[in-house]
Amino acid sequence: MTAMSPSICRRDLDFLLYEWLAAERLLQEPRYAHLDRAALDAVLDAAQKLATERFSPFAAKLDAEEPRLERGRVSIIPELKEALDAYLAAGFLCAPFDLESGGLQFPYLISSAASSLFSAANGPALGYPMLTAAAANLLRAHGTPEQQRRYLKPLIEGRWFGTMCLSEPQAGSSLADVRTRATPQADGLFSMVGGKMWISGGEHELTENIVHLVLARIDGAPAGVQGLSLFIVPRYRVNEDGTLGAANGVRLVGLNHKMGCRGTVNTVLSFGDTPCVGELVGRPNEGLARMFHMMNEARIGVGLAAAASGYAAYRYALAYARQRLQGRRLAQRDPHRPPVAIIEHPDVRRMLLQQKAYVEGGLALCLYCARLVDEQATAPDATRREATRRLLELLTPIAKAWPAEFCLEANKLAIQVLGGYGYTRDYPLERLYRDNRLNAIHEGTNGIQALDLLGRKVPMHNGTAFEALLERMRDSARRAAAHDALSEPAHALATAVARIARTTETLLTAAAQGRVEPALGNAWLYLEMLGHAVVAWLWLEQALCAHAAQSTAPEADRAFYAGKLGACRYFFRYELPRAARHAELLERLDETCLTLATEAF
Amino acid sequence: MTAMSPSICRRDLDFLLYEWLAAERLLQEPRYAHLDRAALDAVLDAAQKLATERFSPFAAKLDAEEPRLERGRVSIIPELKEALDAYLAAGFLCAPFDLESGGLQFPYLISSAASSLFSAANGPALGYPMLTAAAANLLRAHGTPEQQRRYLKPLIEGRWFGTMCLSEPQAGSSLADVRTRATPQADGLFSMVGGKMWISGGEHELTENIVHLVLARIDGAPAGVQGLSLFIVPRYRVNEDGTLGAANGVRLVGLNHKMGCRGTVNTVLSFGDTPCVGELVGRPNEGLARMFHMMNEARIGVGLAAAASGYAAYRYALAYARQRLQGRRLAQRDPHRPPVAIIEHPDVRRMLLQQKAYVEGGLALCLYCARLVDEQATAPDATRREATRRLLELLTPIAKAWPAEFCLEANKLAIQVLGGYGYTRDYPLERLYRDNRLNAIHEGTNGIQALDLLGRKVPMHNGTAFEALLERMRDSARRAAAHDALSEPAHALATAVARIARTTETLLTAAAQGRVEPALGNAWLYLEMLGHAVVAWLWLEQALCAHAAQSTAPEADRAFYAGKLGACRYFFRYELPRAARHAELLERLDETCLTLATEAF
Repeated sequence: MTAMSPSICRRDLDFLLYEWLAAERLLQEPRYAHLDRAALDAVLDAAQKLATERFSPFAAKLDAEEPRLERGRVSIIPELKEALDAYLAAGFLCAPFDLESGGLQFPYLISSAASSLFSAANGPALGYPMLTAAAANLLRAHGTPEQQRRYLKPLIEGRWFGTMCLSEPQAGSSLADVRTRATPQADGLFSMVGGKMWISGGEHELTENIVHLVLARIDGAPAGVQGLSLFIVPRYRVNEDGTLGAANGVRLVGLNHKMGCRGTVNTVLSFGDTPCVGELVGRPNEGLARMFHMMNEARIGVGLAAAASGYAAYRYALAYARQRLQGRRLAQRDPHRPPVAIIEHPDVRRMLLQQKAYVEGGLALCLYCARLVDEQATAPDATRREATRRLLELLTPIAKAWPAEFCLEANKLAIQVLGGYGYTRDYPLERLYRDNRLNAIHEGTNGIQALDLLGRKVPMHNGTAFEALLERMRDSARRAAAHDALSEPAHALATAVARIARTTETLLTAAAQGRVEPALGNAWLYLEMLGHAVVAWLWLEQALCAHAAQSTAPEADRAFYAGKLGACRYFFRYELPRAARHAELLERLDETCLTLATEAF
Repeated sequence: MTAMSPSICRRDLDFLLYEWLAAERLLQEPRYAHLDRAALDAVLDAAQKLATERFSPFAAKLDAEEPRLERGRVSIIPELKEALDAYLAAGFLCAPFDLESGGLQFPYLISSAASSLFSAANGPALGYPMLTAAAANLLRAHGTPEQQRRYLKPLIEGRWFGTMCLSEPQAGSSLADVRTRATPQADGLFSMVGGKMWISGGEHELTENIVHLVLARIDGAPAGVQGLSLFIVPRYRVNEDGTLGAANGVRLVGLNHKMGCRGTVNTVLSFGDTPCVGELVGRPNEGLARMFHMMNEARIGVGLAAAASGYAAYRYALAYARQRLQGRRLAQRDPHRPPVAIIEHPDVRRMLLQQKAYVEGGLALCLYCARLVDEQATAPDATRREATRRLLELLTPIAKAWPAEFCLEANKLAIQVLGGYGYTRDYPLERLYRDNRLNAIHEGTNGIQALDLLGRKVPMHNGTAFEALLERMRDSARRAAAHDALSEPAHALATAVARIARTTETLLTAAAQGRVEPALGNAWLYLEMLGHAVVAWLWLEQALCAHAAQSTAPEADRAFYAGKLGACRYFFRYELPRAARHAELLERLDETCLTLATEAF
């Protein structure tokens, strides 16, 4: 068996970044004037090398020997800190941040591409810097200059790691019931008391401090999400001069033991058993808005992790299928003939192509959104910045949930390609499958993403962002229709867009008429429908590039482009029809699930 | 959190067995004349009690502390042997066997129902007696009287356990490449040499002997599956008087460490490092035919295990959803109102109803097939016996593969209902999910089942078995059409049957014309299509029963019947449309996966 490190295909990454998403055009923006193509390639080369040499080798061990409590402290195998130190030293955490913040001011598109390489190699290890970057992003956007001086810099440097403390045992999906209290002190700080649940990276000894960003309710604030504020609650207090002070009353109650993603320590925390002090970030009672303002990158990050996990599994299964000999072709069963590589079997090819369509599609979706982040940051005027922001807001629930659902399906298929071997712990596929199952749950369950998509994002601003998305899709369909080879998917996409527009109209009308539950009840099916159409659209875009490049491509590259065209064809013929089926159901405003009495389940 | 044992709902079991499958009518057959309703109920009561009290409590421990090697022997936690001894003492293993074989001669339908209860409580523990029953069935059907005397009796009594040794490291799905050799000896026995892989229950200290049924090739036999013979290879040789002799050269090379189903020890065995002797079962070169002759029960057993795993997870998620408070209803977001049980949320109801439709449908399918086993055994004449056998042959690939695919999806949804808690090891759902993933792989992968269905079973006997199945489905549709409340699914089923007949015609015609790969390449999609239609048909049958019973049912039972009608409606509206989508693709004889060059993946 190949002792290969499962990973993203670099040729694909280069295609997506340079041939499709025109990353080099981004470099013309003033913000990236200090960079050139060589610099971008160097980052990807370095990421590939570090991921392969330092992240991949201990991924299995990190899962088998998960973080545990040892004499009251969280103990993690030493390879994690070594790998993360190398990651930080190479500049990967600070890469997308502004130069003036101590970052390298790389496009978010490139740092996302780099993240996909690390995620494919060892997703749980990447959890720590990803959470830290999210915390840093929040403070960059909403912290005072003083807060940024004391907390942002160490986070961007990776000297301290960060966490997002939202959920509590009784408040998972519904943050309205968060009970953690913040009592104002005379010094302007707040006394924090409460318990938090599911806190990834909540405690460890990887860094000298941990910066918890905590959602809590100031005494007397309104009930519900409108009464939540955001606080900085460091593990150790931070003195004026930046040195560390006393422990800040954040107690590790226990560790959660997960099915997968075990290397990212998951904790139950208690604030305030001993004095615990927090600093308000932004204005009171705007905590959730603050947090969700930064959620786009976090959601893309989860989608990217899901895509990377499925992608790595696909590449592993593909390599296996190319060399594992078993059976003979359907039309040539003569047992005297030698067995063939299983990639020759139609059922295996189908499973591989389904994986390819899902995982390369998922990666394309997340990188497309990452580029929108850069477009928003470099927009020439407020109008275009706002339009880009709205499109991003609309797409991010899909970018989070679609790969979490369908790239997990790819993980399942990858196991199936390996048969019994895929089910054993000697091969990485069962671990990747276990790891990826989390992505549909954390950072807002897939069901919550669907409600956000249909209930908020599609109708927002009078549906103009949604219409702008549809128009982008129609535009791609029109461009593709000019090519005979792409006329079938072009037509299918245009048809799907028209259907989705009609279905959406039906749902929003019903919601506006007060039929909220029938309109939103099947929101997940709506996300599947729109998500499939969006991924189909991005496949058509990839196919347009591949089609244009194919005729003049060097011989060695023709197979690559043929693969893109084949996967596009697969997605349109085997996957997109799901959207029409969901559309039918949604348009009926079906109430089967609503009308069945609770006691009848 | 409820400390409940996940299990099959007894009310549902009674409905399926007595109200739908008319188990009591079976008792009119001479074969079951010694039994009455009370005896059947007693078996189910005893199974429920034993499963809850002795199987369920150590299921988590058996997974966490999997079988391991200790000083050269397989060491398993003691609770397993204790539970299995109680299982054997109660007569569950011998239950379906003939009285004259030492069995209790219960209908296979009833012992399957009992198995579902044990499987839901602790599937891996049940693996040992299930394999033993399969081995016993083979010897019952094909062993000589002497072989039955020496091997069958101890197996049926459970004094010895049995295994099925087919696969080898280089021969998983393709048994044609089995290399284990059997060299004839002067005494009529055979000297066995070879290695076997993935042997469940291959070695342990639970019983004083293990009876391996081994596929091997007699020296000089033809290549391929036509040269395979079946052998009895006991761990310890068995003397004339039934006492145990010397070790028989079966060496444990190592244990496979699986993602799930860990309690069923999985081994790599080597035969013949020291002298290893086997006895031929049946005639030379007919080993595979012998083995597959008994495969129906084994396949139903795997399907049943898959259905039970998903079913247990569903019941657990349902109980959780009824008491877990979180959030408020979509149309009543006032945070001053108390949170509601999550079963009030449409998205949760959708996930629950989808699970219910899958798992109760899967259980119905397997019990329907189990009843066919009994009908075959009690058929009044050879014609009807043969017709029943053919229907069973046709249905068993579906009975194995459909629950393995869709009841696993139910496991995934059950985790999602519990959110983060479902992902932790404190709750049984992640274990059930890991366990159930195996069922699509072992005992013939789902892809192999699909090829068997479309390539052999559908066309066999000029398609008469297939036509007989379709006629049963049309008959149910006609009966349902007489009721207004069921006219929608009745019409949908009739339409689906007509479509499937057309699609099948197209595929078989293409195969007959030599277009084998386009015809069979998407066989998995064919199995999904026909499987969904079959499960829809069985849902309509359940709905017919529920509809008839509902109006006169006691108040307390109305919710149960409403649940059946609701799940039927769900399956027809949300699931069956998948079949039409697959039909379209199959009719096109789509070659996307075939024509993409191997290097392009």
